[in-house]
Amino acid sequence: MRLGVCWYPEADDRRLWADDTMRMRDLGLQVVLLAGAAWSSFEPERDLFRWEWLDEAIALADDAGLHVVLGTPTANPPRWLVAEHRDAVAFSRFWQPRTSVQPLCVTATATRAESRRIVGVMADRYGEHEAVIGWKLDEAAASFEQMACWCGECASAFSRWLERRFDGDIAALNSAWGTVERSETYPSFDAVHLPRTGRGVNGGLVLAHRRFVAHQRRRFLDEQAEIIRVLSPGRDLITHHDLRHDDLDADVIAGVGTIVGIDNNLPGGQLFVRNGFTHDLGRGLLEGRPTWVLHQELGARQSVSVAEAPTTDHVSRVLWAAHHHGIETLLAARWRGATHGVDQDLVALLDHAGQPTVGWRGVEQYLREVGAADPNQLVVPSARCALVYRFDDAAVGSQPDHHRSVVLDAYSGARRCGFDVDVVPPGRDLSAYDLVLFPATRIVADDSTSSFESAANADALVIVGPRSFDMDAEHGHVVGPVPAGADAVVRAAVSTSVTLSTPAVMDPGGCEGGQWSESYRLTVDADRATKVLARWIGGGALNGAPAVVRRGNVVSMGGSSTEAWARLITALTGRKLAPSGVEVVERGGVEVTIFDPSAMPSLWR
Amino acid sequence: MRLGVCWYPEADDRRLWADDTMRMRDLGLQVVLLAGAAWSSFEPERDLFRWEWLDEAIALADDAGLHVVLGTPTANPPRWLVAEHRDAVAFSRFWQPRTSVQPLCVTATATRAESRRIVGVMADRYGEHEAVIGWKLDEAAASFEQMACWCGECASAFSRWLERRFDGDIAALNSAWGTVERSETYPSFDAVHLPRTGRGVNGGLVLAHRRFVAHQRRRFLDEQAEIIRVLSPGRDLITHHDLRHDDLDADVIAGVGTIVGIDNNLPGGQLFVRNGFTHDLGRGLLEGRPTWVLHQELGARQSVSVAEAPTTDHVSRVLWAAHHHGIETLLAARWRGATHGVDQDLVALLDHAGQPTVGWRGVEQYLREVGAADPNQLVVPSARCALVYRFDDAAVGSQPDHHRSVVLDAYSGARRCGFDVDVVPPGRDLSAYDLVLFPATRIVADDSTSSFESAANADALVIVGPRSFDMDAEHGHVVGPVPAGADAVVRAAVSTSVTLSTPAVMDPGGCEGGQWSESYRLTVDADRATKVLARWIGGGALNGAPAVVRRGNVVSMGGSSTEAWARLITALTGRKLAPSGVEVVERGGVEVTIFDPSAMPSLWR
Amino acid sequence: MRLGVCWYPEADDRRLWADDTMRMRDLGLQVVLLAGAAWSSFEPERDLFRWEWLDEAIALADDAGLHVVLGTPTANPPRWLVAEHRDAVAFSRFWQPRTSVQPLCVTATATRAESRRIVGVMADRYGEHEAVIGWKLDEAAASFEQMACWCGECASAFSRWLERRFDGDIAALNSAWGTVERSETYPSFDAVHLPRTGRGVNGGLVLAHRRFVAHQRRRFLDEQAEIIRVLSPGRDLITHHDLRHDDLDADVIAGVGTIVGIDNNLPGGQLFVRNGFTHDLGRGLLEGRPTWVLHQELGARQSVSVAEAPTTDHVSRVLWAAHHHGIETLLAARWRGATHGVDQDLVALLDHAGQPTVGWRGVEQYLREVGAADPNQLVVPSARCALVYRFDDAAVGSQPDHHRSVVLDAYSGARRCGFDVDVVPPGRDLSAYDLVLFPATRIVADDSTSSFESAANADALVIVGPRSFDMDAEHGHVVGPVPAGADAVVRAAVSTSVTLSTPAVMDPGGCEGGQWSESYRLTVDADRATKVLARWIGGGALNGAPAVVRRGNVVSMGGSSTEAWARLITALTGRKLAPSGVEVVERGGVEVTIFDPSAMPSLWR
Repeated sequence: MRLGVCWYPEADDRRLWADDTMRMRDLGLQVVLLAGAAWSSFEPERDLFRWEWLDEAIALADDAGLHVVLGTPTANPPRWLVAEHRDAVAFSRFWQPRTSVQPLCVTATATRAESRRIVGVMADRYGEHEAVIGWKLDEAAASFEQMACWCGECASAFSRWLERRFDGDIAALNSAWGTVERSETYPSFDAVHLPRTGRGVNGGLVLAHRRFVAHQRRRFLDEQAEIIRVLSPGRDLITHHDLRHDDLDADVIAGVGTIVGIDNNLPGGQLFVRNGFTHDLGRGLLEGRPTWVLHQELGARQSVSVAEAPTTDHVSRVLWAAHHHGIETLLAARWRGATHGVDQDLVALLDHAGQPTVGWRGVEQYLREVGAADPNQLVVPSARCALVYRFDDAAVGSQPDHHRSVVLDAYSGARRCGFDVDVVPPGRDLSAYDLVLFPATRIVADDSTSSFESAANADALVIVGPRSFDMDAEHGHVVGPVPAGADAVVRAAVSTSVTLSTPAVMDPGGCEGGQWSESYRLTVDADRATKVLARWIGGGALNGAPAVVRRGNVVSMGGSSTEAWARLITALTGRKLAPSGVEVVERGGVEVTIFDPSAMPSLWR
Repeated sequence: MRLGVCWYPEADDRRLWADDTMRMRDLGLQVVLLAGAAWSSFEPERDLFRWEWLDEAIALADDAGLHVVLGTPTANPPRWLVAEHRDAVAFSRFWQPRTSVQPLCVTATATRAESRRIVGVMADRYGEHEAVIGWKLDEAAASFEQMACWCGECASAFSRWLERRFDGDIAALNSAWGTVERSETYPSFDAVHLPRTGRGVNGGLVLAHRRFVAHQRRRFLDEQAEIIRVLSPGRDLITHHDLRHDDLDADVIAGVGTIVGIDNNLPGGQLFVRNGFTHDLGRGLLEGRPTWVLHQELGARQSVSVAEAPTTDHVSRVLWAAHHHGIETLLAARWRGATHGVDQDLVALLDHAGQPTVGWRGVEQYLREVGAADPNQLVVPSARCALVYRFDDAAVGSQPDHHRSVVLDAYSGARRCGFDVDVVPPGRDLSAYDLVLFPATRIVADDSTSSFESAANADALVIVGPRSFDMDAEHGHVVGPVPAGADAVVRAAVSTSVTLSTPAVMDPGGCEGGQWSESYRLTVDADRATKVLARWIGGGALNGAPAVVRRGNVVSMGGSSTEAWARLITALTGRKLAPSGVEVVERGGVEVTIFDPSAMPSLWR
Repeated sequence: MRLGVCWYPEADDRRLWADDTMRMRDLGLQVVLLAGAAWSSFEPERDLFRWEWLDEAIALADDAGLHVVLGTPTANPPRWLVAEHRDAVAFSRFWQPRTSVQPLCVTATATRAESRRIVGVMADRYGEHEAVIGWKLDEAAASFEQMACWCGECASAFSRWLERRFDGDIAALNSAWGTVERSETYPSFDAVHLPRTGRGVNGGLVLAHRRFVAHQRRRFLDEQAEIIRVLSPGRDLITHHDLRHDDLDADVIAGVGTIVGIDNNLPGGQLFVRNGFTHDLGRGLLEGRPTWVLHQELGARQSVSVAEAPTTDHVSRVLWAAHHHGIETLLAARWRGATHGVDQDLVALLDHAGQPTVGWRGVEQYLREVGAADPNQLVVPSARCALVYRFDDAAVGSQPDHHRSVVLDAYSGARRCGFDVDVVPPGRDLSAYDLVLFPATRIVADDSTSSFESAANADALVIVGPRSFDMDAEHGHVVGPVPAGADAVVRAAVSTSVTLSTPAVMDPGGCEGGQWSESYRLTVDADRATKVLARWIGGGALNGAPAVVRRGNVVSMGGSSTEAWARLITALTGRKLAPSGVEVVERGGVEVTIFDPSAMPSLWR
């Protein structure tokens, strides 16, 4: 794993730069990311460009042997530009203009034009610079609420987008969304409005709005990519994601680039497993392409509560975790502590007094440990387990947290059995995997069906979790038994589906089944090959009914907890089960512990 | 109790209808409700009516011997109609247009005109159809926040409404609201604005705004009722309420109809007593008229957490509870599972695969049990207990939840003593009851005073709870001792009134007194007939002071908990006390258990 | 301590007034506050003044020997005036007009003109009345959110205010706010907008906005004060504060007056220490000037939950606490219970039936006890401890609650050691104190530096808490070691600064260090005089590192809890430590217990 750093020379004293780039090199860094937040520094007034400082910074990095990635600066337009385009400012659902982060609506014609202009100018100047190896496109796509805009241009663009999506056929939209319910039949695409409030809104509309927001972002980035590809041939294009949110479809957005870049902080206040999941989710977005961590925080911000102050060892372990999860390049955030702005309390490599921080020392320790390690143990092998994940599935129904819980249960269950896991979008051929998981893969469509069939037909062990294959691609409920497709293979269909505040128990095994719980009835064609592996204890109408059913290599599991997935997988694969919370993988024939809470319990409490 | 079902044939395949209506009949259903959500299906474009399908559906229902109730469709106007009347769209207090449920403001002139038009057309066509026995008016009136609108037409209508209410005399408004406080004296009715924020708003204004919202709804429904009465003579008019909310005055709205219809779900996640209270509250709105459950959910939605998945037995018990609480007709929601829209995860009688659900099986079980029961035990006798309930009382002060707690305490206390309870609005003659409860009947006015006097003079046992008779009808505090009126009978007045986070205890009895707690001082005219039945232990200034005082048949009780009401009632009536949580009534001389948590603890945990 | 009462004769029957003023005198009251909520009573229509009633009320008070304070009525403008100035109505950040309390924007030109007009008229009439001893200016400045306005006039006024603050130099603003970060460099003051949403906003902008809101209020009051000083010479000017909020700078506002007036309720539901802190904070705003409680609630409102109903003894203790904390005059809120409006459930001296309440009896008891007390014990001596408090410090970073916790920890630690405490703004000469505390005094500026140096050089014991001297006056992080200034004296600088959800422990002492936790490294110039008094146990990277460091009379303490401050102070001063929660001071050579939770645990639970 290659290390680098986010560098904001525009905020530092110019006399420090030469020394800083040499110190970066000496620390062992190989990449710097810059320019993405510096638009007002290189274009302080319209068409008045100041490139000298950026020329110098790039040259110094180059001199130090550092590769350079340039950020397109469109998330941080200069205030003079915002002032010129007041009508392009994004609005919240409460009519509040966004005045700080990503202030301009990416749908607005003016925003698009400015974006093309500045990217063109930058790419023209630096596109073929030999130090420049890639471009980061705009800033992280964060949560839906943060990225969505309710301005007038978005309102009409949404209608046009729907019109294209449904080939101009409003009857097709009405059919897909089932608008006959509650008399919501739309007479035209113009009559469909952005849903500004949540109560009682048709699920098809909600889901379409999410897709629209992701799509508008994709179009915005497409325009940048088209320009860069021409002016900066051969360079990588890196999309930027905050995968801790699951309400904006990163699959749609990632497709514009050649590298997926994710944000990460130290996993304080949450389970370590989310950290690994985020890596593997990022890794799954572009098949076979590298994945970067673009902005890795290496300490605890003052403004965030943690159970313990991170130690050098903590930081090193986090870097090792990224390594073992297959991250190719990781950029520390950031070189020097910011005196101002939203990253004011971020723990950089150097603090506000210019002293090395715990982040710096963690990087040193990690590189020292890598140097001392058996090279065979540094290689990340191909994963033998795939977990199918679709962002839209979290948008189905009103319980996105429960959805992610089930996904993380499945993921951590597999990891406790020592599996490296590829988190993959539906549609891939999964026949080469040993274990394939469909945890709450709600939407049944050609892509998810073909993935399921590729695995089921290939004799991979396939486990389908609760609330899978029960919705169509437009938020309609499946007509017929569910999990649709799997029911025919296992010959069992869901009989009761419920959200339990008090989990029921699966017997044998004694594992809790979590909140999303389903029982099965065997279908009329069930035969002796259909095996009931567990039944429910408790849960009211669930009690006594099948909870886990298997036929051949396909298993339907009606409940979910880390323990339940882990025990099922260990029972069916014979893999050794690590203690609760411990993440172990094989590297070069040796068991390597990525994370052990008993050895490092503190930050993750 | 007659059973029926909400039927949405417009959403189903037409080829299923004939069979479906026969299956309804065979299951034992007698009534279908339809058309209320189908406006866009019978008027897909302005003045282009498509009645054939509805004609057929009604005919099929008629053929199957089912009675038909038609819903007026005004809560679900077609999108083409909403698009024509953008200025009639309702707005939230945050300026958000309501785009989905009940999108049009019922005050708006355009909404009113469209309402009269479509109801006229429907009533003209079906008003005298022999299968049609009634009309449901619009949709459920839910919470205040959901029903209120802050548009411009509402703003001026509010001023006009106040002008009529105060006979054009702004001085009368100022006097009633005590606007001399804080210099809020209004120069004119036009100067009174809808309260868009809550902080520091005069209570009289808040209360008037609530009344206005209920009144506008009433006027809206009045217009529909006037048309239907002419064109559909002799048919019932059913108003639709969600009585789980108490911030919109159902008394005002119910008066337009001949039958009260309520919504209900399975009582998961709350005490069963609320279920019974809701029935009895609905039953009390129109004296001597039938009460329906219009929309009874018979399973647990996926989107709602429950302690256990409901069983057939659960469902049957819920139907029995409705029966024993005097519901005349109950409609299951709904025939087939909706594939789309807000009821997508509602558990219908048939699931998305067309299979019978737990709801279906519960209906079967209930009807089987009814068939096997002693007919004497099926008759619901007249209640011997009345509980006086005024919706506006919950709007007095800032603690509506505490208000409802006190009401439910009193209600469940009486039920644990085996009383059937009539929940009645103030103003009725209560002289025929054995037991009359005034729990937190805050507003003292002619109606509540006359009800109190009718009971007190008739030698009914009368119990007045904390915070009763302390406010006037415009949210002014009573000048003089409280509970006003009762103080003179009992010869004791409230000395301290407080909200306790840690309840104090009533001695003897040892019951907790709840949060709203008051002590009494005996007035100068108290004599030996004034008996202090209990004193407070704890509660600071309450300690040692009278908590319950009786004189003759009237009791003032300064605290409230289910246990306190139950023990006081059992002590004063000699009635047997059922164990905590158990609801027992006498039917045909036999004790019948409506609900026993030890036998069915699960869903209601 | 002198007692008085808020009197609203405009809301009472005029026939009660003469008797009421005599009863006030007989109870022992000496001051009445009136007129501040009565504008519509003395100017019911524009330019139609009705002074007779106010003349009479003042004359009656005068006859009874009561001093009169008049409130300027601008927080409660008549509705006819609001109706004339719709464009001057204040707006929330969600575009909601404020319709009730303080409805007009104090920036608006129209509001300012009306304010000058009415204050001029009042001061002209009553300014030289012999009974009038002072003027209360407008109403309490409450929380930032309640006082801020987002109207158009505020938006442009904010730009103009910044322009003056930065001497017309936009580059100076950009430098101070570090807008080079994220490309937020402003091209002009007009391009700086009011921050309507919170996400990602530059800290300098947030802090400036707070200052602007306080400054606009100050300017508004300045205009009133200028008029009164001319027309009512020699009278006191009283500013009105609600110091339970810390997000509006009371220092800025208090400067306009000669007396600080604060609001207070009975300290139910919170620690008693906050009650004393509020007094001492108010007392510190105007050095050497009297402090009043303008609005002391003497009972528990029905709408607020308390652990127990307050007793006469409770009320008396609260009055004693005010006495011992140096309050000069305390006004009970209010004479008669309000029948209407937001104070409808406030416990006045007389209840709605005209009967004395627990408040009345508490006043009687307090005055009786004062009369019986040793006069030496009634004198409040000069405090020997100063605690430096800056309102802006709470606005730095995103954890205002943690900031106030640290402040209250330090305050109560000192009080448990028997210190009277002066809470003072930075900038004062503190050389005369024995003990000087800088708990989370974040902003390092000339004023805080000079206060620190005055104490450090004078051999006072100086204790600097966590997160002190780490930010500059415009929300920039200090460049260099922190706590800046103290680091050079103690010769130790912060090495790790973190917010812990699980507090670490300081050893020896065994005290928890709270949430804001910092460890120190000794600097290169540290010598044997630099003593590590305690080290951290736990806390991850904190573990084993210095937690408390002393050199000479200056101590840096990296954690905070009441216990930690108390034990450190007792160890370093030799003062006796009172049990947890007990507040003891010396009065006339005798230990006086202000508050003992074991004797009176109830309301404050």
